[in-house]
Amino acid sequence: MADLVVGAGLDRLSLNVWTTKGWSLREAVDGCVRAGVPGIGLWRDKVAEAGLDTAVRLVRESGLTVTSLCRGGFFTGHAADRAAATAGNRRAVDEACALGADVLALVAGGLPPRSTDLAGARSQVADGIAELAPYAAGHGVRLAIEPLHPMFCADRAVISTLGQALDLAEQVDPSGADVGVCLDSYHVWWDPQLMAQIGRAGPRIFAFQVSDFLVPIPPDTLLGRGHLGDGVIDIPALARAVLATGYPGLIEVEIFSQEVWDTPGQQTLRTVIDRHRRCLSGITGTGRPGPR
Amino acid sequence: MADLVVGAGLDRLSLNVWTTKGWSLREAVDGCVRAGVPGIGLWRDKVAEAGLDTAVRLVRESGLTVTSLCRGGFFTGHAADRAAATAGNRRAVDEACALGADVLALVAGGLPPRSTDLAGARSQVADGIAELAPYAAGHGVRLAIEPLHPMFCADRAVISTLGQALDLAEQVDPSGADVGVCLDSYHVWWDPQLMAQIGRAGPRIFAFQVSDFLVPIPPDTLLGRGHLGDGVIDIPALARAVLATGYPGLIEVEIFSQEVWDTPGQQTLRTVIDRHRRCLSGITGTGRPGPR
Repeated sequence: MADLVVGAGLDRLSLNVWTTKGWSLREAVDGCVRAGVPGIGLWRDKVAEAGLDTAVRLVRESGLTVTSLCRGGFFTGHAADRAAATAGNRRAVDEACALGADVLALVAGGLPPRSTDLAGARSQVADGIAELAPYAAGHGVRLAIEPLHPMFCADRAVISTLGQALDLAEQVDPSGADVGVCLDSYHVWWDPQLMAQIGRAGPRIFAFQVSDFLVPIPPDTLLGRGHLGDGVIDIPALARAVLATGYPGLIEVEIFSQEVWDTPGQQTLRTVIDRHRRCLSGITGTGRPGPR
Repeated sequence: MADLVVGAGLDRLSLNVWTTKGWSLREAVDGCVRAGVPGIGLWRDKVAEAGLDTAVRLVRESGLTVTSLCRGGFFTGHAADRAAATAGNRRAVDEACALGADVLALVAGGLPPRSTDLAGARSQVADGIAELAPYAAGHGVRLAIEPLHPMFCADRAVISTLGQALDLAEQVDPSGADVGVCLDSYHVWWDPQLMAQIGRAGPRIFAFQVSDFLVPIPPDTLLGRGHLGDGVIDIPALARAVLATGYPGLIEVEIFSQEVWDTPGQQTLRTVIDRHRRCLSGITGTGRPGPR
Protein backbone atom coordinates (compact mmCIF):
# COMPACT_ATOMS: atom_id res chain seq x y z
CA MET A 1 0.00 0.00 0.00
CA ALA A 2 2.73 2.45 0.96
CA ASP A 3 4.02 2.63 -2.60
CA LEU A 4 0.69 3.90 -3.85
CA VAL A 5 0.93 6.92 -1.60
CA VAL A 6 4.40 7.97 -2.60
CA GLY A 7 4.28 11.07 -4.73
CA ALA A 8 0.48 11.31 -4.88
CA GLY A 9 -0.48 14.97 -5.03
CA LEU A 10 3.15 16.02 -4.94
CA ASP A 11 3.83 16.79 -8.61
CA ARG A 12 4.49 20.42 -7.74
CA LEU A 13 6.47 20.03 -4.51
CA SER A 14 10.09 20.92 -3.98
CA LEU A 15 11.98 20.71 -0.70
CA ASN A 16 14.50 23.43 0.02
CA VAL A 17 17.48 21.88 1.78
CA TRP A 18 17.44 24.52 4.52
CA THR A 19 14.03 23.28 5.62
CA THR A 20 15.71 20.03 6.69
CA LYS A 21 18.82 21.82 7.85
CA GLY A 22 20.10 18.90 9.91
CA TRP A 23 20.26 16.72 6.82
CA SER A 24 23.27 16.53 4.55
CA LEU A 25 22.66 17.09 0.86
CA ARG A 26 22.74 13.33 0.32
CA GLU A 27 20.14 12.76 3.04
CA ALA A 28 17.88 15.46 1.59
CA VAL A 29 18.16 14.02 -1.93
CA ASP A 30 17.46 10.52 -0.65
CA GLY A 31 14.54 11.80 1.45
CA CYS A 32 12.93 13.45 -1.56
CA VAL A 33 13.40 10.43 -3.80
CA ARG A 34 11.97 8.04 -1.22
CA ALA A 35 8.95 10.24 -0.62
CA GLY A 36 8.21 10.93 -4.26
CA VAL A 37 8.98 14.64 -3.95
CA PRO A 38 10.06 15.70 -7.44
CA GLY A 39 12.09 18.81 -6.67
CA ILE A 40 14.82 20.13 -4.42
CA GLY A 41 16.02 23.67 -3.72
CA LEU A 42 19.72 23.98 -2.96
CA TRP A 43 21.90 26.31 -0.95
CA ARG A 44 25.52 26.85 -1.82
CA ASP A 45 26.72 25.95 1.68
CA LYS A 46 25.18 22.47 1.46
CA VAL A 47 26.63 22.04 -2.01
CA ALA A 48 30.06 23.06 -0.73
CA GLU A 49 29.82 20.62 2.18
CA ALA A 50 29.14 17.77 -0.23
CA GLY A 51 31.65 19.05 -2.78
CA LEU A 52 30.37 20.42 -6.08
CA ASP A 53 31.18 17.32 -8.14
CA THR A 54 29.48 15.02 -5.66
CA ALA A 55 26.49 17.36 -5.44
CA VAL A 56 26.15 17.43 -9.23
CA ARG A 57 26.30 13.64 -9.37
CA LEU A 58 23.81 13.22 -6.52
CA VAL A 59 21.16 15.45 -8.06
CA ARG A 60 21.67 14.11 -11.59
CA GLU A 61 21.36 10.50 -10.49
CA SER A 62 18.32 11.32 -8.36
CA GLY A 63 16.36 12.73 -11.26
CA LEU A 64 15.20 15.57 -9.02
CA THR A 65 14.46 18.98 -10.49
CA VAL A 66 16.69 21.62 -8.90
CA THR A 67 14.21 24.46 -8.42
CA SER A 68 16.72 27.00 -7.22
CA LEU A 69 20.23 27.60 -6.06
CA CYS A 70 20.40 30.05 -3.18
CA ARG A 71 22.01 32.42 -3.44
CA GLY A 72 23.91 35.06 -5.30
CA GLY A 73 23.63 38.77 -4.84
CA PHE A 74 24.84 41.06 -2.07
CA PHE A 75 25.68 43.67 -4.63
CA THR A 76 25.99 46.58 -2.21
CA GLY A 77 28.97 47.92 -0.32
CA HIS A 78 32.31 49.54 -0.79
CA ALA A 79 34.50 48.84 -3.79
CA ALA A 80 36.30 45.81 -2.32
CA ASP A 81 33.00 44.23 -1.21
CA ARG A 82 31.58 44.71 -4.64
CA ALA A 83 34.58 43.20 -6.40
CA ALA A 84 34.35 40.18 -4.10
CA ALA A 85 30.63 39.94 -4.83
CA THR A 86 31.25 39.97 -8.56
CA ALA A 87 33.68 37.07 -8.30
CA GLY A 88 31.42 35.17 -5.91
CA ASN A 89 28.39 35.65 -8.12
CA ARG A 90 30.20 34.27 -11.14
CA ARG A 91 31.10 31.19 -9.14
CA ALA A 92 27.45 30.91 -8.09
CA VAL A 93 26.42 31.00 -11.76
CA ASP A 94 29.00 28.30 -12.54
CA GLU A 95 27.57 26.13 -9.78
CA ALA A 96 23.96 26.72 -10.86
CA CYS A 97 24.96 25.72 -14.37
CA ALA A 98 26.73 22.57 -13.21
CA LEU A 99 23.80 21.61 -11.00
CA GLY A 100 21.24 22.26 -13.72
CA ALA A 101 19.35 24.61 -11.37
CA ASP A 102 16.23 26.31 -12.72
CA VAL A 103 17.40 29.62 -11.31
CA LEU A 104 20.03 31.35 -9.25
CA ALA A 105 18.19 33.33 -6.57
CA LEU A 106 19.59 36.80 -5.91
CA VAL A 107 19.40 38.56 -2.56
CA ALA A 108 20.18 42.21 -3.22
CA GLY A 109 22.24 43.14 -0.16
CA GLY A 110 21.52 45.83 2.39
CA LEU A 111 22.89 49.26 3.15
CA PRO A 112 26.68 49.47 3.38
CA PRO A 113 27.92 49.92 6.97
CA ARG A 114 26.98 53.30 8.43
CA SER A 115 25.32 54.35 5.18
CA THR A 116 21.82 55.80 4.93
CA ASP A 117 21.99 56.09 1.15
CA LEU A 118 19.20 53.75 0.14
CA ALA A 119 18.93 55.11 -3.39
CA GLY A 120 22.66 54.62 -3.83
CA ALA A 121 22.49 51.04 -2.59
CA ARG A 122 19.65 50.33 -4.99
CA SER A 123 21.74 51.71 -7.84
CA GLN A 124 24.55 49.37 -6.85
CA VAL A 125 22.12 46.45 -7.02
CA ALA A 126 20.94 47.46 -10.47
CA ASP A 127 24.53 47.80 -11.65
CA GLY A 128 25.50 44.47 -10.12
CA ILE A 129 22.67 42.57 -11.76
CA ALA A 130 23.28 44.26 -15.10
CA GLU A 131 26.91 43.21 -14.88
CA LEU A 132 26.10 39.62 -13.90
CA ALA A 133 23.25 39.06 -16.36
CA PRO A 134 25.29 38.50 -19.56
CA TYR A 135 27.59 36.06 -17.75
CA ALA A 136 24.58 34.14 -16.42
CA ALA A 137 22.82 34.12 -19.78
CA GLY A 138 26.02 32.85 -21.38
CA HIS A 139 25.89 29.90 -19.01
CA GLY A 140 22.17 29.27 -19.48
CA VAL A 141 21.41 30.29 -15.90
CA ARG A 142 18.34 32.41 -15.21
CA LEU A 143 18.60 35.03 -12.46
CA ALA A 144 15.71 35.40 -10.02
CA ILE A 145 15.68 38.63 -8.00
CA GLU A 146 14.14 37.94 -4.62
CA PRO A 147 12.38 40.78 -2.81
CA LEU A 148 12.87 40.39 0.94
CA HIS A 149 10.53 41.53 3.69
CA PRO A 150 11.11 45.22 4.52
CA MET A 151 12.35 44.24 7.97
CA PHE A 152 15.52 43.08 6.18
CA CYS A 153 15.92 46.24 4.09
CA ALA A 154 18.83 47.64 6.09
CA ASP A 155 20.93 44.53 6.49
CA ARG A 156 20.03 42.09 3.72
CA ALA A 157 18.04 43.37 0.78
CA VAL A 158 17.19 46.86 -0.38
CA ILE A 159 14.75 45.24 -2.80
CA SER A 160 11.56 44.93 -0.74
CA THR A 161 8.59 44.45 -3.05
CA LEU A 162 7.65 42.39 -6.07
CA GLY A 163 6.94 45.59 -8.00
CA GLN A 164 10.42 46.87 -7.31
CA ALA A 165 12.00 43.54 -8.30
CA LEU A 166 10.01 43.53 -11.54
CA ASP A 167 11.05 47.12 -12.33
CA LEU A 168 14.64 46.02 -11.96
CA ALA A 169 14.23 42.80 -13.95
CA GLU A 170 12.55 44.65 -16.81
CA GLN A 171 15.26 47.29 -16.81
CA VAL A 172 18.09 44.75 -16.97
CA ASP A 173 16.41 42.27 -19.32
CA PRO A 174 13.56 43.61 -21.45
CA SER A 175 13.16 40.19 -23.09
CA GLY A 176 12.07 38.54 -19.85
CA ALA A 177 13.94 35.35 -20.69
CA ASP A 178 16.97 35.70 -18.44
CA VAL A 179 16.15 37.89 -15.44
CA GLY A 180 13.00 37.42 -13.41
CA VAL A 181 11.94 37.12 -9.79
CA CYS A 182 11.84 34.63 -6.98
CA LEU A 183 8.59 35.05 -5.09
CA ASP A 184 8.70 33.94 -1.45
CA SER A 185 5.41 34.03 0.46
CA TYR A 186 7.13 34.94 3.73
CA HIS A 187 8.59 38.11 2.27
CA VAL A 188 5.70 39.43 0.18
CA TRP A 189 2.39 38.37 1.75
CA TRP A 190 1.71 41.77 3.40
CA ASP A 191 2.09 43.82 0.19
CA PRO A 192 -1.12 45.62 -0.80
CA GLN A 193 0.09 45.53 -4.42
CA LEU A 194 0.89 41.82 -4.38
CA MET A 195 -1.93 40.41 -6.47
CA ALA A 196 -1.68 43.18 -9.06
CA GLN A 197 2.09 42.69 -9.32
CA ILE A 198 1.76 38.91 -9.67
CA GLY A 199 -0.56 39.58 -12.60
CA ARG A 200 2.01 41.97 -14.03
CA ALA A 201 4.86 39.50 -13.45
CA GLY A 202 3.41 36.73 -15.60
CA PRO A 203 6.29 34.60 -16.87
CA ARG A 204 8.84 36.66 -14.93
CA ILE A 205 8.11 34.49 -11.90
CA PHE A 206 11.01 32.10 -12.21
CA ALA A 207 10.75 30.55 -8.74
CA PHE A 208 8.07 30.29 -6.08
CA GLN A 209 8.97 29.57 -2.47
CA VAL A 210 6.53 29.12 0.37
CA SER A 211 6.51 29.12 4.15
CA ASP A 212 4.12 30.67 6.61
CA PHE A 213 4.67 33.88 8.63
CA LEU A 214 4.44 33.25 12.37
CA VAL A 215 3.20 35.76 14.92
CA PRO A 216 4.77 36.92 17.13
CA ILE A 217 8.01 37.32 15.24
CA PRO A 218 10.75 35.54 17.22
CA PRO A 219 13.77 37.43 18.61
CA ASP A 220 15.81 36.36 15.58
CA THR A 221 13.64 37.86 12.85
CA LEU A 222 15.18 35.54 10.27
CA LEU A 223 13.60 32.52 11.91
CA GLY A 224 9.92 33.47 12.03
CA ARG A 225 8.80 30.94 9.43
CA GLY A 226 6.53 28.00 9.87
CA HIS A 227 4.91 25.15 8.01
CA LEU A 228 2.04 26.07 5.69
CA GLY A 229 -1.06 26.69 7.74
CA ASP A 230 0.73 27.59 10.98
CA GLY A 231 0.81 31.33 10.36
CA VAL A 232 -1.07 34.27 8.90
CA ILE A 233 -0.60 33.83 5.15
CA ASP A 234 -3.39 32.69 2.85
CA ILE A 235 -1.06 30.34 0.97
CA PRO A 236 -3.80 28.77 -1.20
CA ALA A 237 -4.85 32.20 -2.51
CA LEU A 238 -1.26 33.12 -3.23
CA ALA A 239 -0.57 29.82 -5.00
CA ARG A 240 -3.74 30.19 -7.04
CA ALA A 241 -2.62 33.64 -8.20
CA VAL A 242 0.88 32.45 -9.10
CA LEU A 243 -0.38 29.40 -10.99
CA ALA A 244 -2.95 31.56 -12.81
CA THR A 245 -0.03 33.35 -14.49
CA GLY A 246 0.89 30.04 -16.09
CA TYR A 247 3.83 29.49 -13.73
CA PRO A 248 5.13 26.11 -14.83
CA GLY A 249 7.50 25.38 -11.98
CA LEU A 250 7.43 23.65 -8.64
CA ILE A 251 6.49 25.14 -5.28
CA GLU A 252 9.51 25.07 -3.03
CA VAL A 253 9.09 24.88 0.72
CA GLU A 254 11.79 26.93 2.45
CA ILE A 255 11.44 27.22 6.21
CA PHE A 256 13.93 28.91 8.53
CA SER A 257 12.84 28.03 12.05
CA GLN A 258 14.73 26.82 15.07
CA GLU A 259 11.82 24.57 16.00
CA VAL A 260 11.69 22.99 12.55
CA TRP A 261 15.47 22.64 12.53
CA ASP A 262 15.35 20.90 15.90
CA THR A 263 12.98 18.31 14.42
CA PRO A 264 14.39 15.19 12.68
CA GLY A 265 14.55 15.65 8.90
CA GLN A 266 12.26 12.74 8.14
CA GLN A 267 9.54 14.11 10.38
CA THR A 268 9.89 17.59 8.89
CA LEU A 269 9.60 16.20 5.39
CA ARG A 270 6.44 14.32 6.39
CA THR A 271 4.94 17.58 7.67
CA VAL A 272 5.99 19.42 4.52
CA ILE A 273 4.25 16.79 2.41
CA ASP A 274 1.16 16.73 4.59
CA ARG A 275 0.78 20.50 4.50
CA HIS A 276 1.41 20.66 0.76
CA ARG A 277 -1.40 18.19 0.23
CA ARG A 278 -3.69 19.95 2.67
CA CYS A 279 -3.09 23.50 1.40
CA LEU A 280 -2.37 23.01 -2.25
CA SER A 281 -4.17 19.92 -3.53
CA GLY A 282 -6.78 20.94 -6.03
CA ILE A 283 -4.85 24.16 -6.73
CA THR A 284 -1.80 22.62 -8.34
CA GLY A 285 -3.95 20.61 -10.69
CA THR A 286 -2.75 17.33 -9.26
CA GLY A 287 -6.10 16.45 -7.80
CA ARG A 288 -6.96 15.04 -4.41
CA PRO A 289 -4.52 13.55 -1.91
CA GLY A 290 -3.63 9.93 -2.64
CA PRO A 291 -4.88 6.99 -0.57
CA ARG A 292 -3.43 6.67 2.92
CA MET B 1 23.32 83.11 28.38
CA ALA B 2 21.20 79.98 28.81
CA ASP B 3 18.00 81.85 28.03
CA LEU B 4 19.28 82.75 24.59
CA VAL B 5 19.54 79.10 23.66
CA VAL B 6 16.00 78.15 24.58
CA GLY B 7 13.98 77.44 21.50
CA ALA B 8 16.66 78.41 18.98
CA GLY B 9 16.23 76.22 15.91
CA LEU B 10 13.30 74.42 17.45
CA ASP B 11 10.35 76.12 15.76
CA ARG B 12 9.38 72.84 14.15
CA LEU B 13 9.99 70.44 17.03
CA SER B 14 7.36 68.45 18.89
CA LEU B 15 8.03 65.91 21.63
CA ASN B 16 5.83 62.83 21.70
CA VAL B 17 5.13 61.92 25.31
CA TRP B 18 6.09 58.28 24.75
CA THR B 19 9.64 59.37 23.96
CA THR B 20 9.95 60.47 27.60
CA LYS B 21 7.84 57.59 28.84
CA GLY B 22 8.97 57.92 32.45
CA TRP B 23 7.59 61.45 32.61
CA SER B 24 4.02 62.21 33.57
CA LEU B 25 2.06 64.44 31.22
CA ARG B 26 2.74 67.40 33.50
CA GLU B 27 6.48 66.71 33.50
CA ALA B 28 6.51 66.42 29.70
CA VAL B 29 4.57 69.66 29.27
CA ASP B 30 6.85 71.47 31.71
CA GLY B 31 9.92 69.99 30.02
CA CYS B 32 8.83 71.28 26.61
CA VAL B 33 7.96 74.73 27.91
CA ARG B 34 11.26 75.08 29.75
CA ALA B 35 13.26 73.99 26.70
CA GLY B 36 11.38 76.12 24.20
CA VAL B 37 9.96 73.12 22.36
CA PRO B 38 6.74 74.39 20.79
CA GLY B 39 4.83 71.13 20.33
CA ILE B 40 3.81 67.97 22.11
CA GLY B 41 2.37 64.71 20.82
CA LEU B 42 -0.01 62.96 23.19
CA TRP B 43 -1.06 59.39 23.89
CA ARG B 44 -4.41 58.59 25.37
CA ASP B 45 -2.92 56.58 28.23
CA LYS B 46 -0.93 59.59 29.48
CA VAL B 47 -4.00 61.77 29.12
CA ALA B 48 -6.05 59.26 31.10
CA GLU B 49 -3.41 59.11 33.84
CA ALA B 50 -3.58 62.87 34.25
CA GLY B 51 -7.35 62.96 33.81
CA LEU B 52 -8.79 64.54 30.67
CA ASP B 53 -9.78 67.84 32.29
CA THR B 54 -6.37 68.28 33.88
CA ALA B 55 -4.68 67.33 30.60
CA VAL B 56 -6.76 69.88 28.69
CA ARG B 57 -5.89 72.58 31.22
CA LEU B 58 -2.18 71.66 31.22
CA VAL B 59 -1.78 71.87 27.46
CA ARG B 60 -3.94 74.99 27.10
CA GLU B 61 -2.03 76.87 29.79
CA SER B 62 1.28 75.75 28.33
CA GLY B 63 0.58 77.22 24.92
CA LEU B 64 2.01 74.08 23.32
CA THR B 65 0.70 72.87 19.97
CA VAL B 66 -0.72 69.36 20.30
CA THR B 67 0.61 67.76 17.13
CA SER B 68 -1.23 64.47 17.50
CA LEU B 69 -3.29 62.32 19.77
CA CYS B 70 -2.34 58.66 19.54
CA ARG B 71 -4.37 56.75 18.84
CA GLY B 72 -7.64 55.58 17.44
CA GLY B 73 -8.19 52.76 15.02
CA PHE B 74 -8.02 48.98 15.48
CA PHE B 75 -10.96 48.63 13.16
CA THR B 76 -10.50 44.90 12.49
CA GLY B 77 -11.92 41.91 14.26
CA HIS B 78 -15.13 40.14 15.02
CA ALA B 79 -18.41 42.01 15.50
CA ALA B 80 -17.97 42.65 19.24
CA ASP B 81 -14.41 43.95 18.75
CA ARG B 82 -15.60 46.28 16.07
CA ALA B 83 -18.47 47.65 18.11
CA ALA B 84 -16.06 48.30 20.97
CA ALA B 85 -13.67 49.99 18.53
CA THR B 86 -16.43 52.25 17.25
CA ALA B 87 -17.26 53.43 20.76
CA GLY B 88 -13.60 53.81 21.70
CA ASN B 89 -12.84 55.77 18.55
CA ARG B 90 -15.63 58.23 19.23
CA ARG B 91 -14.21 58.81 22.70
CA ALA B 92 -10.80 59.33 21.10
CA VAL B 93 -12.30 61.96 18.81
CA ASP B 94 -13.92 63.66 21.80
CA GLU B 95 -10.57 63.75 23.58
CA ALA B 96 -8.72 65.05 20.52
CA CYS B 97 -11.34 67.77 20.23
CA ALA B 98 -11.05 68.73 23.90
CA LEU B 99 -7.26 68.76 23.71
CA GLY B 100 -7.21 70.80 20.52
CA ALA B 101 -5.04 68.15 18.87
CA ASP B 102 -4.00 68.73 15.26
CA VAL B 103 -4.95 65.15 14.41
CA LEU B 104 -6.12 61.87 15.78
CA ALA B 105 -3.68 59.22 14.53
CA LEU B 106 -5.28 55.96 13.39
CA VAL B 107 -3.59 52.59 13.58
CA ALA B 108 -5.58 50.25 11.38
CA GLY B 109 -5.52 47.01 13.36
CA GLY B 110 -4.16 43.64 12.29
CA LEU B 111 -5.69 40.37 11.19
CA PRO B 112 -8.41 39.00 13.46
CA PRO B 113 -7.27 35.98 15.52
CA ARG B 114 -6.64 32.93 13.35
CA SER B 115 -7.67 34.78 10.23
CA THR B 116 -5.64 34.90 7.03
CA ASP B 117 -8.14 37.15 5.27
CA LEU B 118 -6.03 40.22 4.67
CA ALA B 119 -8.36 41.68 2.05
CA GLY B 120 -11.27 41.27 4.46
CA ALA B 121 -9.38 43.01 7.26
CA ARG B 122 -8.54 45.88 4.94
CA SER B 123 -12.22 46.20 4.05
CA GLN B 124 -13.04 46.42 7.74
CA VAL B 125 -10.53 49.24 8.10
CA ALA B 126 -12.05 51.13 5.19
CA ASP B 127 -15.53 50.67 6.64
CA GLY B 128 -14.38 51.72 10.10
CA ILE B 129 -12.73 54.91 8.89
CA ALA B 130 -15.70 55.77 6.68
CA GLU B 131 -17.97 55.36 9.69
CA LEU B 132 -15.76 57.44 11.99
CA ALA B 133 -15.00 60.24 9.54
CA PRO B 134 -18.31 62.17 9.75
CA TYR B 135 -18.22 62.05 13.55
CA ALA B 136 -14.64 63.35 13.56
CA ALA B 137 -15.40 66.06 11.01
CA GLY B 138 -18.38 67.11 13.10
CA HIS B 139 -16.01 67.66 16.01
CA GLY B 140 -13.38 69.44 13.94
CA VAL B 141 -10.90 66.58 14.38
CA ARG B 142 -8.80 65.51 11.42
CA LEU B 143 -8.04 61.80 11.07
CA ALA B 144 -4.51 60.74 10.13
CA ILE B 145 -4.17 57.16 8.88
CA GLU B 146 -0.76 55.85 9.87
CA PRO B 147 0.81 53.14 7.74
CA LEU B 148 2.87 50.81 9.95
CA HIS B 149 5.97 48.86 8.96
CA PRO B 150 5.01 45.58 7.27
CA MET B 151 6.47 43.64 10.19
CA PHE B 152 3.35 44.75 12.10
CA CYS B 153 0.90 43.80 9.35
CA ALA B 154 -0.44 40.69 11.08
CA ASP B 155 -0.88 42.01 14.58
CA ARG B 156 -1.22 45.80 14.41
CA ALA B 157 -1.89 47.38 11.06
CA VAL B 158 -2.95 45.95 7.72
CA ILE B 159 -2.14 49.36 6.24
CA SER B 160 1.55 49.11 5.43
CA THR B 161 2.48 51.79 2.90
CA LEU B 162 1.91 55.48 2.34
CA GLY B 163 0.36 54.73 -1.03
CA GLN B 164 -2.16 52.40 0.54
CA ALA B 165 -3.00 54.94 3.27
CA LEU B 166 -3.51 57.63 0.63
CA ASP B 167 -5.75 55.36 -1.44
CA LEU B 168 -7.88 54.89 1.63
CA ALA B 169 -7.89 58.56 2.64
CA GLU B 170 -8.91 59.61 -0.87
CA GLN B 171 -11.65 57.02 -0.95
CA VAL B 172 -13.15 58.12 2.37
CA ASP B 173 -12.64 61.86 1.93
CA PRO B 174 -12.19 63.11 -1.62
CA SER B 175 -11.94 66.71 -0.34
CA GLY B 176 -8.70 66.03 1.51
CA ALA B 177 -9.70 68.29 4.38
CA ASP B 178 -10.68 65.73 7.00
CA VAL B 179 -8.85 62.45 6.38
CA GLY B 180 -5.14 62.32 5.66
CA VAL B 181 -2.07 60.44 6.79
CA CYS B 182 0.41 60.36 9.61
CA LEU B 183 3.85 59.71 8.19
CA ASP B 184 6.30 58.06 10.58
CA SER B 185 9.88 57.66 9.36
CA TYR B 186 10.34 54.40 11.25
CA HIS B 187 7.49 52.73 9.41
CA VAL B 188 7.99 53.98 5.86
CA TRP B 189 11.69 54.62 5.24
CA TRP B 190 12.25 51.36 3.30
CA ASP B 191 9.45 51.91 0.77
CA PRO B 192 10.72 52.20 -2.82
CA GLN B 193 7.64 54.31 -3.61
CA LEU B 194 8.11 56.65 -0.66
CA MET B 195 9.32 59.80 -2.37
CA ALA B 196 6.77 59.50 -5.17
CA GLN B 197 3.96 58.97 -2.68
CA ILE B 198 5.06 61.93 -0.55
CA GLY B 199 4.79 64.03 -3.70
CA ARG B 200 1.35 62.60 -4.33
CA ALA B 201 0.27 63.15 -0.71
CA GLY B 202 0.83 66.89 -0.70
CA PRO B 203 -1.50 68.44 1.90
CA ARG B 204 -2.79 65.01 2.95
CA ILE B 205 0.22 64.73 5.26
CA PHE B 206 -1.44 65.81 8.48
CA ALA B 207 1.28 64.66 10.87
CA PHE B 208 4.97 63.85 10.57
CA GLN B 209 6.71 61.72 13.18
CA VAL B 210 10.38 60.84 13.24
CA SER B 211 12.68 58.35 14.89
CA ASP B 212 15.53 56.31 13.50
CA PHE B 213 15.45 52.59 12.61
CA LEU B 214 18.09 50.64 14.52
CA VAL B 215 19.86 47.55 13.24
CA PRO B 216 19.73 44.84 14.42
CA ILE B 217 16.05 44.90 15.28
CA PRO B 218 15.73 44.08 19.01
CA PRO B 219 13.82 41.01 20.23
CA ASP B 220 10.74 43.18 20.82
CA THR B 221 10.27 44.52 17.32
CA LEU B 222 8.21 47.43 18.64
CA LEU B 223 11.23 48.90 20.39
CA GLY B 224 13.74 49.18 17.56
CA ARG B 225 13.71 52.96 17.41
CA GLY B 226 16.49 55.37 18.15
CA HIS B 227 17.33 59.05 18.22
CA LEU B 228 17.78 60.71 14.84
CA GLY B 229 21.17 59.78 13.45
CA ASP B 230 21.56 56.54 15.38
CA GLY B 231 20.07 54.30 12.68
CA VAL B 232 19.75 53.74 8.96
CA ILE B 233 17.24 56.40 7.89
CA ASP B 234 18.23 59.47 5.93
CA ILE B 235 16.02 61.71 8.06
CA PRO B 236 17.16 64.99 6.47
CA ALA B 237 16.19 63.75 2.99
CA LEU B 238 12.82 62.59 4.26
CA ALA B 239 12.15 65.87 6.07
CA ARG B 240 13.16 67.83 3.00
CA ALA B 241 10.65 65.88 0.90
CA VAL B 242 7.85 66.33 3.42
CA LEU B 243 8.48 70.05 3.84
CA ALA B 244 8.68 70.46 0.05
CA THR B 245 4.98 69.50 -0.09
CA GLY B 246 4.25 72.61 1.96
CA TYR B 247 3.67 70.61 5.14
CA PRO B 248 2.98 73.36 7.66
CA GLY B 249 3.16 71.31 10.86
CA LEU B 250 5.74 70.36 13.41
CA ILE B 251 8.05 67.36 13.35
CA GLU B 252 7.22 65.07 16.23
CA VAL B 253 9.87 62.85 17.74
CA GLU B 254 8.34 59.54 18.81
CA ILE B 255 10.82 56.95 20.05
CA PHE B 256 9.92 53.55 21.48
CA SER B 257 13.11 52.15 22.95
CA GLN B 258 13.90 50.48 26.23
CA GLU B 259 17.25 52.25 26.33
CA VAL B 260 15.67 55.66 25.78
CA TRP B 261 12.97 54.87 28.32
CA ASP B 262 15.61 53.90 30.86
CA THR B 263 17.18 57.35 30.47
CA PRO B 264 15.94 60.28 32.61
CA GLY B 265 13.39 62.40 30.74
CA GLN B 266 15.43 65.58 30.93
CA GLN B 267 18.43 63.89 29.36
CA THR B 268 16.30 62.33 26.62
CA LEU B 269 14.76 65.71 25.82
CA ARG B 270 18.23 67.23 25.58
CA THR B 271 19.23 64.53 23.08
CA VAL B 272 16.00 65.03 21.11
CA ILE B 273 16.74 68.75 20.86
CA ASP B 274 20.37 68.22 19.98
CA ARG B 275 19.55 65.74 17.22
CA HIS B 276 16.76 67.90 15.85
CA ARG B 277 19.22 70.77 15.53
CA ARG B 278 21.92 68.59 14.06
CA CYS B 279 19.71 66.75 11.52
CA LEU B 280 17.08 69.31 10.66
CA SER B 281 18.50 72.81 11.04
CA GLY B 282 18.64 74.46 7.67
CA ILE B 283 15.88 72.16 6.44
CA THR B 284 13.11 73.47 8.62
CA GLY B 285 13.96 77.01 7.65
CA THR B 286 14.88 77.94 11.19
CA GLY B 287 18.52 78.48 10.42
CA ARG B 288 21.59 77.49 12.36
CA PRO B 289 21.68 76.20 15.91
CA GLY B 290 21.59 78.96 18.51
CA PRO B 291 24.55 79.96 20.69
CA ARG B 292 25.64 77.48 23.33
